Amino acid sequence: MSLPRVAIVGPGLLGGSIALAVRARGLGSVAIWARRAEAAEAALRDGFAEVASTELREVVEGADVVVLCTPVGAMPALAREIAPLVKADALITDVGSVKAALVAEIAPIFRGRFVGSHPMAGSEQTGMQAARAGLFEGAVCIVTPEAASLPETVAAVGEFWTSLGCRVRQLSPVEHDEVVALISHLPHLLAATLVNTVADRNAAAFGYAGPGFRDTTRVAGGAPEMWAEILTANRESVLKSADAMIESLREIANILARDAGAPALLEFLTLAKHRRDAAAHLNA
Amino acid sequence: MSLPRVAIVGPGLLGGSIALAVRARGLGSVAIWARRAEAAEAALRDGFAEVASTELREVVEGADVVVLCTPVGAMPALAREIAPLVKADALITDVGSVKAALVAEIAPIFRGRFVGSHPMAGSEQTGMQAARAGLFEGAVCIVTPEAASLPETVAAVGEFWTSLGCRVRQLSPVEHDEVVALISHLPHLLAATLVNTVADRNAAAFGYAGPGFRDTTRVAGGAPEMWAEILTANRESVLKSADAMIESLREIANILARDAGAPALLEFLTLAKHRRDAAAHLNA
Repeated sequence: MSLPRVAIVGPGLLGGSIALAVRARGLGSVAIWARRAEAAEAALRDGFAEVASTELREVVEGADVVVLCTPVGAMPALAREIAPLVKADALITDVGSVKAALVAEIAPIFRGRFVGSHPMAGSEQTGMQAARAGLFEGAVCIVTPEAASLPETVAAVGEFWTSLGCRVRQLSPVEHDEVVALISHLPHLLAATLVNTVADRNAAAFGYAGPGFRDTTRVAGGAPEMWAEILTANRESVLKSADAMIESLREIANILARDAGAPALLEFLTLAKHRRDAAAHLNA
Repeated sequence: MSLPRVAIVGPGLLGGSIALAVRARGLGSVAIWARRAEAAEAALRDGFAEVASTELREVVEGADVVVLCTPVGAMPALAREIAPLVKADALITDVGSVKAALVAEIAPIFRGRFVGSHPMAGSEQTGMQAARAGLFEGAVCIVTPEAASLPETVAAVGEFWTSLGCRVRQLSPVEHDEVVALISHLPHLLAATLVNTVADRNAAAFGYAGPGFRDTTRVAGGAPEMWAEILTANRESVLKSADAMIESLREIANILARDAGAPALLEFLTLAKHRRDAAAHLNA
Protein backbone atom coordinates (compact mmCIF):
# COMPACT_ATOMS: atom_id res chain seq x y z
CA MET A 1 0.00 0.00 0.00
CA SER A 2 1.32 3.44 -0.87
CA LEU A 3 1.73 6.07 1.82
CA PRO A 4 -1.43 8.03 2.57
CA ARG A 5 -2.11 11.38 1.04
CA VAL A 6 -2.82 14.10 3.61
CA ALA A 7 -4.83 17.12 2.48
CA ILE A 8 -4.42 20.24 4.60
CA VAL A 9 -7.09 22.88 4.15
CA GLY A 10 -5.59 26.18 5.31
CA PRO A 11 -1.83 26.69 5.67
CA GLY A 12 -1.48 28.49 9.00
CA LEU A 13 0.73 27.62 11.96
CA LEU A 14 -1.08 24.34 12.60
CA GLY A 15 -1.65 23.34 8.97
CA GLY A 16 1.94 24.14 8.08
CA SER A 17 3.26 22.24 11.09
CA ILE A 18 1.15 19.17 10.23
CA ALA A 19 2.59 19.32 6.69
CA LEU A 20 6.16 19.52 7.98
CA ALA A 21 5.58 16.76 10.55
CA VAL A 22 4.01 14.39 7.98
CA ARG A 23 6.94 14.92 5.63
CA ALA A 24 9.68 14.86 8.29
CA ARG A 25 8.32 11.60 9.66
CA GLY A 26 7.83 10.07 6.20
CA LEU A 27 4.17 9.42 6.93
CA GLY A 28 2.74 10.33 3.55
CA SER A 29 2.46 12.96 0.86
CA VAL A 30 0.98 16.38 1.52
CA ALA A 31 -1.42 18.56 -0.46
CA ILE A 32 -2.31 22.05 0.79
CA TRP A 33 -5.27 24.24 -0.05
CA ALA A 34 -4.89 27.98 0.46
CA ARG A 35 -7.39 30.72 -0.22
CA ARG A 36 -4.73 32.99 -1.70
CA ALA A 37 -2.55 31.99 -4.67
CA GLU A 38 0.56 33.50 -3.05
CA ALA A 39 0.09 31.28 0.00
CA ALA A 40 -0.23 28.19 -2.18
CA GLU A 41 2.89 29.18 -4.12
CA ALA A 42 4.81 29.77 -0.88
CA ALA A 43 3.74 26.34 0.42
CA LEU A 44 5.20 24.68 -2.68
CA ARG A 45 8.31 26.84 -2.82
CA ASP A 46 9.16 26.34 0.87
CA GLY A 47 8.77 22.58 0.71
CA PHE A 48 5.58 22.20 2.75
CA ALA A 49 3.77 20.06 0.19
CA GLU A 50 3.95 18.10 -3.05
CA VAL A 51 0.74 19.77 -4.21
CA ALA A 52 -0.62 23.20 -3.30
CA SER A 53 -3.55 24.93 -4.89
CA THR A 54 -6.42 27.34 -4.45
CA GLU A 55 -8.68 24.69 -6.02
CA LEU A 56 -10.19 22.43 -3.34
CA ARG A 57 -10.71 19.60 -5.85
CA GLU A 58 -6.98 19.39 -6.67
CA VAL A 59 -6.14 19.09 -2.98
CA VAL A 60 -8.80 16.84 -1.45
CA GLU A 61 -9.61 14.47 -4.35
CA GLY A 62 -7.95 11.14 -3.59
CA ALA A 63 -6.87 12.25 -0.11
CA ASP A 64 -6.87 9.63 2.63
CA VAL A 65 -6.90 12.22 5.42
CA VAL A 66 -8.35 15.73 5.22
CA VAL A 67 -7.52 18.18 8.00
CA LEU A 68 -9.46 21.44 8.21
CA CYS A 69 -7.00 24.07 9.48
CA THR A 70 -8.72 27.36 8.65
CA PRO A 71 -10.31 29.65 11.23
CA VAL A 72 -13.34 27.93 12.76
CA GLY A 73 -15.80 30.30 11.10
CA ALA A 74 -14.72 29.24 7.61
CA MET A 75 -14.90 25.49 8.25
CA PRO A 76 -18.59 24.60 7.71
CA ALA A 77 -18.76 26.17 4.23
CA LEU A 78 -15.49 24.48 3.23
CA ALA A 79 -16.76 21.17 4.61
CA ARG A 80 -19.83 21.36 2.36
CA GLU A 81 -17.60 22.03 -0.64
CA ILE A 82 -15.26 19.20 0.26
CA ALA A 83 -17.87 16.49 0.97
CA PRO A 84 -18.73 15.63 -2.66
CA LEU A 85 -15.04 15.68 -3.70
CA VAL A 86 -13.48 13.20 -1.24
CA LYS A 87 -13.21 9.42 -1.35
CA ALA A 88 -15.96 7.55 0.49
CA ASP A 89 -13.50 6.21 3.05
CA ALA A 90 -11.48 9.39 3.57
CA LEU A 91 -10.88 10.41 7.16
CA ILE A 92 -11.94 13.99 7.96
CA THR A 93 -10.84 16.00 10.97
CA ASP A 94 -10.03 19.57 11.96
CA VAL A 95 -7.94 21.60 14.42
CA GLY A 96 -10.61 24.03 15.67
CA SER A 97 -10.27 25.37 19.22
CA VAL A 98 -14.01 25.16 19.93
CA LYS A 99 -15.91 21.97 19.27
CA ALA A 100 -19.59 21.63 20.29
CA ALA A 101 -21.26 23.90 17.72
CA LEU A 102 -18.66 23.13 15.05
CA VAL A 103 -18.92 19.34 15.34
CA ALA A 104 -22.72 19.55 15.36
CA GLU A 105 -22.55 21.42 12.07
CA ILE A 106 -19.78 19.49 10.30
CA ALA A 107 -20.25 15.89 11.44
CA PRO A 108 -23.57 15.31 9.61
CA ILE A 109 -21.98 16.52 6.36
CA PHE A 110 -19.55 13.59 6.44
CA ARG A 111 -21.82 10.96 8.04
CA GLY A 112 -19.62 9.58 10.77
CA ARG A 113 -16.34 9.93 8.89
CA PHE A 114 -15.63 13.28 10.57
CA VAL A 115 -14.23 13.33 14.09
CA GLY A 116 -13.16 16.68 15.52
CA SER A 117 -9.68 17.26 16.94
CA HIS A 118 -7.95 19.96 18.92
CA PRO A 119 -4.18 19.69 19.11
CA MET A 120 -3.15 21.84 22.11
CA ALA A 121 -0.07 23.13 20.39
CA GLY A 122 -0.84 26.68 19.41
CA SER A 123 1.47 29.53 20.04
CA GLU A 124 1.20 33.28 20.12
CA GLN A 125 2.83 33.10 16.69
CA THR A 126 0.73 32.61 13.61
CA GLY A 127 1.14 31.77 9.96
CA MET A 128 2.92 29.13 7.96
CA GLN A 129 6.29 30.83 8.43
CA ALA A 130 6.10 30.00 12.16
CA ALA A 131 5.34 26.32 11.47
CA ARG A 132 7.70 23.59 12.64
CA ALA A 133 7.79 19.83 12.32
CA GLY A 134 8.20 19.30 16.07
CA LEU A 135 5.20 21.41 17.14
CA PHE A 136 3.13 18.36 18.11
CA GLU A 137 5.76 16.34 19.90
CA GLY A 138 4.45 15.64 23.39
CA ALA A 139 1.45 17.95 22.91
CA VAL A 140 -1.98 16.84 24.05
CA CYS A 141 -4.48 16.39 21.21
CA ILE A 142 -8.11 16.19 22.27
CA VAL A 143 -10.23 14.07 19.92
CA THR A 144 -13.97 14.71 20.25
CA PRO A 145 -16.19 11.86 19.06
CA GLU A 146 -19.96 12.30 19.21
CA ALA A 147 -22.89 9.87 19.00
CA ALA A 148 -22.70 9.30 15.24
CA SER A 149 -18.92 8.91 15.00
CA LEU A 150 -17.84 5.56 13.56
CA PRO A 151 -15.55 3.79 16.06
CA GLU A 152 -12.96 3.01 13.35
CA THR A 153 -12.88 6.69 12.39
CA VAL A 154 -12.33 7.71 16.01
CA ALA A 155 -9.48 5.21 16.26
CA ALA A 156 -7.94 6.30 12.96
CA VAL A 157 -8.05 10.02 13.83
CA GLY A 158 -6.36 9.21 17.14
CA GLU A 159 -3.68 7.21 15.32
CA PHE A 160 -3.09 10.10 12.93
CA TRP A 161 -2.30 12.49 15.80
CA THR A 162 -0.27 9.87 17.64
CA SER A 163 1.83 9.43 14.50
CA LEU A 164 2.64 13.18 14.62
CA GLY A 165 3.85 12.85 18.23
CA CYS A 166 0.72 13.91 20.13
CA ARG A 167 -0.60 12.39 23.34
CA VAL A 168 -4.23 11.72 22.39
CA ARG A 169 -7.16 12.10 24.80
CA GLN A 170 -10.89 11.84 24.18
CA LEU A 171 -13.63 14.17 25.37
CA SER A 172 -17.15 14.80 24.12
CA PRO A 173 -17.41 18.09 22.20
CA VAL A 174 -19.27 19.73 25.13
CA GLU A 175 -16.76 18.49 27.73
CA HIS A 176 -13.97 19.73 25.47
CA ASP A 177 -15.43 23.23 25.36
CA GLU A 178 -15.76 23.39 29.15
CA VAL A 179 -12.19 22.19 29.62
CA VAL A 180 -10.60 24.58 27.11
CA ALA A 181 -12.62 27.48 28.51
CA LEU A 182 -10.80 26.85 31.79
CA ILE A 183 -7.28 26.09 30.58
CA SER A 184 -7.04 28.16 27.42
CA HIS A 185 -9.81 30.70 26.79
CA LEU A 186 -10.08 32.13 30.31
CA PRO A 187 -6.25 32.36 30.60
CA HIS A 188 -6.22 34.26 27.31
CA LEU A 189 -8.88 36.68 28.51
CA LEU A 190 -6.94 37.16 31.77
CA ALA A 191 -3.65 37.83 29.99
CA ALA A 192 -5.23 40.44 27.70
CA THR A 193 -7.08 42.04 30.62
CA LEU A 194 -3.91 42.15 32.72
CA VAL A 195 -2.01 43.91 29.93
CA ASN A 196 -4.80 46.46 29.49
CA THR A 197 -5.18 47.00 33.24
CA VAL A 198 -1.47 47.69 33.66
CA ALA A 199 -1.41 50.00 30.63
CA ASP A 200 -4.45 51.94 31.85
CA ARG A 201 -3.09 52.42 35.36
CA ASN A 202 0.61 53.01 34.61
CA ALA A 203 1.93 52.40 31.11
CA ALA A 204 5.52 53.00 32.26
CA ALA A 205 5.26 49.89 34.46
CA PHE A 206 5.87 47.65 31.42
CA GLY A 207 9.47 48.86 31.41
CA TYR A 208 10.05 47.18 34.77
CA ALA A 209 8.42 43.87 33.96
CA GLY A 210 10.50 40.73 34.31
CA PRO A 211 10.15 37.06 33.38
CA GLY A 212 7.06 36.53 35.56
CA PHE A 213 5.01 39.18 33.76
CA ARG A 214 6.42 38.08 30.42
CA ASP A 215 5.19 34.51 30.90
CA THR A 216 1.90 35.44 32.57
CA THR A 217 0.95 37.64 29.60
CA ARG A 218 2.62 35.77 26.73
CA VAL A 219 -0.61 34.50 25.18
CA ALA A 220 -1.94 38.08 24.96
CA GLY A 221 0.36 38.41 21.93
CA GLY A 222 -1.86 35.95 20.01
CA ALA A 223 -3.86 36.94 16.92
CA PRO A 224 -6.81 39.09 18.09
CA GLU A 225 -9.11 38.06 15.23
CA MET A 226 -8.60 34.37 15.97
CA TRP A 227 -9.11 34.83 19.69
CA ALA A 228 -12.18 37.04 19.34
CA GLU A 229 -13.67 34.28 17.19
CA ILE A 230 -12.74 31.55 19.69
CA LEU A 231 -14.05 33.43 22.73
CA THR A 232 -17.29 34.25 20.96
CA ALA A 233 -17.74 30.69 19.72
CA ASN A 234 -17.27 29.33 23.25
CA ARG A 235 -19.02 32.22 24.93
CA GLU A 236 -21.20 30.27 27.35
CA SER A 237 -18.37 28.23 28.89
CA VAL A 238 -15.97 31.18 28.88
CA LEU A 239 -18.46 33.36 30.75
CA LYS A 240 -19.05 30.66 33.38
CA SER A 241 -15.29 30.36 33.89
CA ALA A 242 -14.82 34.13 33.98
CA ASP A 243 -17.60 34.49 36.57
CA ALA A 244 -15.95 31.86 38.77
CA MET A 245 -12.58 33.59 38.37
CA ILE A 246 -13.99 37.02 39.26
CA GLU A 247 -15.72 35.59 42.32
CA SER A 248 -12.56 33.84 43.49
CA LEU A 249 -10.46 36.96 42.87
CA ARG A 250 -12.92 39.10 44.83
CA GLU A 251 -12.81 36.58 47.67
CA ILE A 252 -9.01 36.47 47.91
CA ALA A 253 -8.84 40.28 47.65
CA ASN A 254 -11.25 40.50 50.59
CA ILE A 255 -9.07 38.10 52.54
CA LEU A 256 -5.99 40.20 51.76
CA ALA A 257 -7.84 43.34 52.84
CA ARG A 258 -8.55 41.90 56.29
CA ASP A 259 -5.89 42.48 58.91
CA ALA A 260 -6.34 38.90 60.09
CA GLY A 261 -6.30 37.47 56.57
CA ALA A 262 -2.72 36.18 56.51
CA PRO A 263 -3.42 32.50 57.36
CA ALA A 264 -6.19 32.22 54.74
CA LEU A 265 -4.00 33.95 52.13
CA LEU A 266 -1.13 31.57 52.84
CA GLU A 267 -3.51 28.61 52.60
CA PHE A 268 -4.83 29.86 49.24
CA LEU A 269 -1.33 30.30 47.79
CA THR A 270 -0.16 26.96 49.19
CA LEU A 271 -3.14 25.18 47.67
CA ALA A 272 -2.43 26.78 44.28
CA LYS A 273 1.23 25.81 44.43
CA HIS A 274 0.44 22.18 45.34
CA ARG A 275 -2.18 21.91 42.64
CA ARG A 276 0.12 23.32 39.99
CA ASP A 277 3.14 21.28 41.12
CA ALA A 278 0.94 18.16 40.92
CA ALA A 279 0.34 18.77 37.19
CA ALA A 280 3.69 17.23 36.41
CA HIS A 281 3.64 17.83 32.66
CA LEU A 282 3.45 21.59 33.28
CA ASN A 283 6.82 21.48 35.01
CA ALA A 284 8.69 19.28 32.56
CA MET B 1 43.16 48.82 46.02
CA SER B 2 42.09 45.28 46.84
CA LEU B 3 38.83 43.93 45.47
CA PRO B 4 35.79 44.78 47.56
CA ARG B 5 34.35 42.37 50.07
CA VAL B 6 30.67 41.64 49.53
CA ALA B 7 28.64 40.44 52.52
CA ILE B 8 25.45 38.58 51.69
CA VAL B 9 22.96 38.26 54.51
CA GLY B 10 20.72 35.29 53.69
CA PRO B 11 21.71 32.63 51.16
CA GLY B 12 18.53 32.09 49.11
CA LEU B 13 18.09 32.16 45.35
CA LEU B 14 19.01 35.84 45.11
CA GLY B 15 21.78 35.86 47.74
CA GLY B 16 23.32 32.73 46.26
CA SER B 17 23.13 34.14 42.73
CA ILE B 18 24.76 37.42 43.80
CA ALA B 19 27.57 35.36 45.39
CA LEU B 20 28.07 33.31 42.23
CA ALA B 21 27.93 36.40 39.99
CA VAL B 22 30.45 38.34 42.11
CA ARG B 23 32.86 35.41 42.01
CA ALA B 24 32.29 34.48 38.35
CA ARG B 25 32.92 38.09 37.31
CA GLY B 26 35.92 38.46 39.61
CA LEU B 27 34.36 41.49 41.29
CA GLY B 28 35.41 40.75 44.85
CA SER B 29 35.37 38.28 47.69
CA VAL B 30 32.13 36.98 49.20
CA ALA B 31 31.06 36.38 52.79
CA ILE B 32 27.66 34.82 53.52
CA TRP B 33 25.58 34.91 56.68
CA ALA B 34 23.03 32.14 57.16
CA ARG B 35 20.71 31.58 60.09
CA ARG B 36 21.32 27.83 60.06
CA ALA B 37 24.80 26.29 60.43
CA GLU B 38 24.06 23.70 57.71
CA ALA B 39 23.29 26.48 55.23
CA ALA B 40 26.55 28.25 56.06
CA GLU B 41 28.47 24.99 55.68
CA ALA B 42 26.78 24.29 52.34
CA ALA B 43 27.67 27.78 51.10
CA LEU B 44 31.34 27.14 51.84
CA ARG B 45 31.35 23.57 50.55
CA ASP B 46 29.62 24.47 47.28
CA GLY B 47 31.94 27.36 46.54
CA PHE B 48 29.54 30.25 47.07
CA ALA B 49 31.83 32.18 49.39
CA GLU B 50 35.25 32.51 50.98
CA VAL B 51 33.63 33.04 54.37
CA ALA B 52 30.29 31.74 55.62
CA SER B 53 29.01 31.90 59.15
CA THR B 54 26.01 32.14 61.42
CA GLU B 55 27.75 35.02 63.21
CA LEU B 56 26.85 38.37 61.66
CA ARG B 57 30.05 39.97 62.91
CA GLU B 58 32.25 37.52 60.99
CA VAL B 59 30.40 38.28 57.78
CA VAL B 60 29.74 42.02 57.79
CA GLU B 61 32.79 43.37 59.62
CA GLY B 62 35.11 44.91 57.05
CA ALA B 63 32.59 44.44 54.23
CA ASP B 64 32.45 47.12 51.53
CA VAL B 65 28.99 46.10 50.35
CA VAL B 66 26.29 44.47 52.49
CA VAL B 67 23.27 43.01 50.71
CA LEU B 68 20.24 41.98 52.78
CA CYS B 69 18.76 38.91 51.06
CA THR B 70 16.50 37.40 53.73
CA PRO B 71 12.70 37.52 53.63
CA VAL B 72 11.54 41.13 54.00
CA GLY B 73 10.09 40.52 57.47
CA ALA B 74 13.49 39.57 58.91
CA MET B 75 15.38 42.56 57.47
CA PRO B 76 14.77 45.39 60.00
CA ALA B 77 15.97 43.36 62.99
CA LEU B 78 19.05 42.20 61.08
CA ALA B 79 19.74 45.76 59.96
CA ARG B 80 19.81 46.93 63.59
CA GLU B 81 22.26 44.15 64.45
CA ILE B 82 24.45 44.95 61.46
CA ALA B 83 24.62 48.75 61.85
CA PRO B 84 27.17 48.85 64.71
CA LEU B 85 29.34 46.18 63.05
CA VAL B 86 29.97 47.65 59.61
CA LYS B 87 32.57 50.14 58.38
CA ALA B 88 31.41 53.76 58.33
CA ASP B 89 31.63 53.90 54.54
CA ALA B 90 30.09 50.50 53.80
CA LEU B 91 27.36 50.43 51.20
CA ILE B 92 24.11 48.77 52.38
CA THR B 93 21.33 47.56 50.14
CA ASP B 94 18.75 44.77 49.97
CA VAL B 95 16.72 42.71 47.49
CA GLY B 96 13.26 43.03 49.05
CA SER B 97 10.24 42.90 46.75
CA VAL B 98 8.36 45.63 48.63
CA LYS B 99 10.03 48.93 49.39
CA ALA B 100 8.06 51.81 50.96
CA ALA B 101 7.59 50.49 54.51
CA LEU B 102 10.90 48.62 54.46
CA VAL B 103 13.01 51.56 53.30
CA ALA B 104 11.30 53.85 55.82
CA GLU B 105 12.31 51.44 58.58
CA ILE B 106 15.85 50.55 57.45
CA ALA B 107 17.21 53.75 55.89
CA PRO B 108 17.38 55.73 59.16
CA ILE B 109 19.39 52.92 60.78
CA PHE B 110 22.21 53.48 58.27
CA ARG B 111 21.88 57.28 57.86
CA GLY B 112 21.93 57.64 54.10
CA ARG B 113 24.27 54.75 53.38
CA PHE B 114 21.34 52.40 52.73
CA VAL B 115 19.59 52.50 49.37
CA GLY B 116 16.98 49.85 48.66
CA SER B 117 17.13 47.64 45.57
CA HIS B 118 14.83 45.18 43.86
CA PRO B 119 16.45 43.03 41.19
CA MET B 120 13.55 41.72 39.05
CA ALA B 121 15.12 38.34 38.62
CA GLY B 122 13.20 36.02 40.87
CA SER B 123 11.94 32.68 39.76
CA GLU B 124 9.37 30.18 40.98
CA GLN B 125 12.40 28.29 42.27
CA THR B 126 13.85 29.09 45.67
CA GLY B 127 16.93 28.34 47.71
CA MET B 128 20.64 28.54 47.18
CA GLN B 129 20.67 25.30 45.17
CA ALA B 130 18.67 27.10 42.43
CA ALA B 131 21.15 30.02 42.32
CA ARG B 132 23.10 30.79 39.15
CA ALA B 133 25.73 33.32 38.21
CA GLY B 134 23.79 34.53 35.16
CA LEU B 135 20.52 35.27 36.98
CA PHE B 136 20.96 39.04 36.75
CA GLU B 137 22.19 39.33 33.18
CA GLY B 138 19.81 41.67 31.39
CA ALA B 139 17.42 41.80 34.35
CA VAL B 140 15.95 45.12 35.46
CA CYS B 141 17.04 46.20 38.94
CA ILE B 142 15.00 48.97 40.51
CA VAL B 143 16.99 51.13 42.91
CA THR B 144 14.81 53.16 45.30
CA PRO B 145 16.49 56.25 46.75
CA GLU B 146 14.55 58.40 49.22
CA ALA B 147 15.02 61.91 50.55
CA ALA B 148 17.90 61.10 52.90
CA SER B 149 19.89 58.90 50.49
CA LEU B 150 23.39 60.20 49.82
CA PRO B 151 23.85 60.74 46.04
CA GLU B 152 27.15 58.85 46.05
CA THR B 153 25.47 55.88 47.73
CA VAL B 154 22.70 55.86 45.14
CA ALA B 155 25.31 55.91 42.38
CA ALA B 156 27.41 53.19 44.01
CA VAL B 157 24.43 50.86 44.56
CA GLY B 158 23.48 51.32 40.90
CA GLU B 159 27.04 50.51 39.85
CA PHE B 160 27.01 47.38 42.00
CA TRP B 161 23.95 46.00 40.17
CA THR B 162 25.27 47.12 36.80
CA SER B 163 28.46 45.18 37.50
CA LEU B 164 26.32 42.03 37.98
CA GLY B 165 24.69 42.54 34.58
CA CYS B 166 21.49 44.36 35.59
CA ARG B 167 19.82 47.20 33.76
CA VAL B 168 19.36 49.71 36.59
CA ARG B 169 16.33 52.02 36.91
CA GLN B 170 15.35 54.39 39.70
CA LEU B 171 11.96 54.82 41.33
CA SER B 172 10.92 56.24 44.67
CA PRO B 173 9.97 53.49 47.16
CA VAL B 174 6.26 54.37 46.80
CA GLU B 175 6.39 54.41 42.98
CA HIS B 176 8.22 51.09 43.12
CA ASP B 177 5.47 49.48 45.18
CA GLU B 178 2.76 50.68 42.79
CA VAL B 179 4.69 49.41 39.77
CA VAL B 180 5.47 45.97 41.19
CA ALA B 181 1.88 45.58 42.39
CA LEU B 182 0.89 45.82 38.73
CA ILE B 183 3.62 43.79 37.05
CA SER B 184 4.47 41.23 39.72
CA HIS B 185 2.11 40.99 42.69
CA LEU B 186 -1.19 41.16 40.82
CA PRO B 187 0.06 38.65 38.19
CA HIS B 188 1.01 36.32 41.03
CA LEU B 189 -2.42 36.62 42.63
CA LEU B 190 -4.03 36.00 39.21
CA ALA B 191 -1.93 32.91 38.52
CA ALA B 192 -2.76 31.38 41.91
CA THR B 193 -6.44 32.26 41.55
CA LEU B 194 -6.56 30.78 38.04
CA VAL B 195 -5.07 27.50 39.27
CA ASN B 196 -7.55 27.32 42.14
CA THR B 197 -10.51 28.26 39.93
CA VAL B 198 -9.68 25.54 37.41
CA ALA B 199 -9.15 22.97 40.17
CA ASP B 200 -12.43 23.87 41.86
CA ARG B 201 -14.46 23.68 38.64
CA ASN B 202 -12.81 20.69 36.96
CA ALA B 203 -9.59 19.28 38.36
CA ALA B 204 -9.25 16.90 35.39
CA ALA B 205 -8.80 19.93 33.11
CA PHE B 206 -5.14 20.26 34.19
CA GLY B 207 -4.42 17.08 32.22
CA TYR B 208 -5.29 18.91 28.99
CA ALA B 209 -3.33 22.07 29.65
CA GLY B 210 -0.70 23.11 27.14
CA PRO B 211 2.09 25.69 26.95
CA GLY B 212 -0.29 28.65 27.27
CA PHE B 213 -1.64 27.54 30.63
CA ARG B 214 1.81 26.44 31.73
CA ASP B 215 3.25 29.92 31.16
CA THR B 216 0.21 31.84 32.41
CA THR B 217 0.35 30.01 35.75
CA ARG B 218 4.10 29.44 36.13
CA VAL B 219 4.58 31.95 38.95
CA ALA B 220 1.90 30.18 41.02
CA GLY B 221 4.61 27.59 41.74
CA GLY B 222 6.50 30.19 43.80
CA ALA B 223 7.05 29.86 47.56
CA PRO B 224 3.69 30.54 49.29
CA GLU B 225 5.26 31.91 52.50
CA MET B 226 7.33 34.43 50.57
CA TRP B 227 4.41 35.52 48.42
CA ALA B 228 1.96 35.78 51.32
CA GLU B 229 4.48 38.07 52.98
CA ILE B 230 4.99 40.17 49.83
CA LEU B 231 1.26 40.54 49.09
CA THR B 232 0.55 41.50 52.69
CA ALA B 233 3.44 43.98 52.81
CA ASN B 234 2.18 45.67 49.63
CA ARG B 235 -1.47 45.21 50.44
CA GLU B 236 -2.71 48.69 49.60
CA SER B 237 -1.23 48.81 46.08
CA VAL B 238 -2.11 45.16 45.39
CA LEU B 239 -5.74 45.74 46.34
CA LYS B 240 -5.98 48.81 44.09
CA SER B 241 -4.57 46.79 41.20
CA ALA B 242 -6.83 43.82 41.93
CA ASP B 243 -9.89 46.07 42.03
CA ALA B 244 -8.97 47.54 38.65
CA MET B 245 -8.41 44.05 37.25
CA ILE B 246 -11.75 42.76 38.52
CA GLU B 247 -13.55 45.78 37.10
CA SER B 248 -11.88 45.36 33.71
CA LEU B 249 -12.59 41.61 33.68
CA ARG B 250 -16.25 42.23 34.54
CA GLU B 251 -16.44 44.79 31.74
CA ILE B 252 -14.96 42.52 29.06
CA ALA B 253 -17.15 39.61 30.25
CA ASN B 254 -20.19 41.85 29.83
CA ILE B 255 -19.03 42.75 26.35
CA LEU B 256 -18.58 39.07 25.49
CA ALA B 257 -22.06 38.32 26.87
CA ARG B 258 -23.67 40.80 24.50
CA ASP B 259 -24.65 39.47 21.09
CA ALA B 260 -23.32 42.65 19.51
CA GLY B 261 -20.10 42.61 21.54
CA ALA B 262 -17.77 41.25 18.88
CA PRO B 263 -16.27 44.57 17.65
CA ALA B 264 -15.53 45.76 21.21
CA LEU B 265 -14.04 42.37 22.11
CA LEU B 266 -11.78 42.46 19.05
CA GLU B 267 -10.75 46.02 19.90
CA PHE B 268 -9.90 44.98 23.48
CA LEU B 269 -7.78 42.02 22.35
CA THR B 270 -6.08 44.07 19.64
CA LEU B 271 -5.20 46.80 22.13
CA ALA B 272 -3.71 44.20 24.50
CA LYS B 273 -1.67 42.63 21.72
CA HIS B 274 -0.29 45.98 20.52
CA ARG B 275 0.55 47.06 24.05
CA ARG B 276 2.33 43.81 24.83
CA ASP B 277 4.15 43.69 21.47
CA ALA B 278 5.35 47.25 22.14
CA ALA B 279 7.13 46.12 25.33
CA ALA B 280 10.02 44.86 23.24
CA HIS B 281 12.06 43.37 26.08
CA LEU B 282 9.19 40.98 26.86
CA ASN B 283 9.55 39.43 23.42
CA ALA B 284 13.32 39.10 23.27
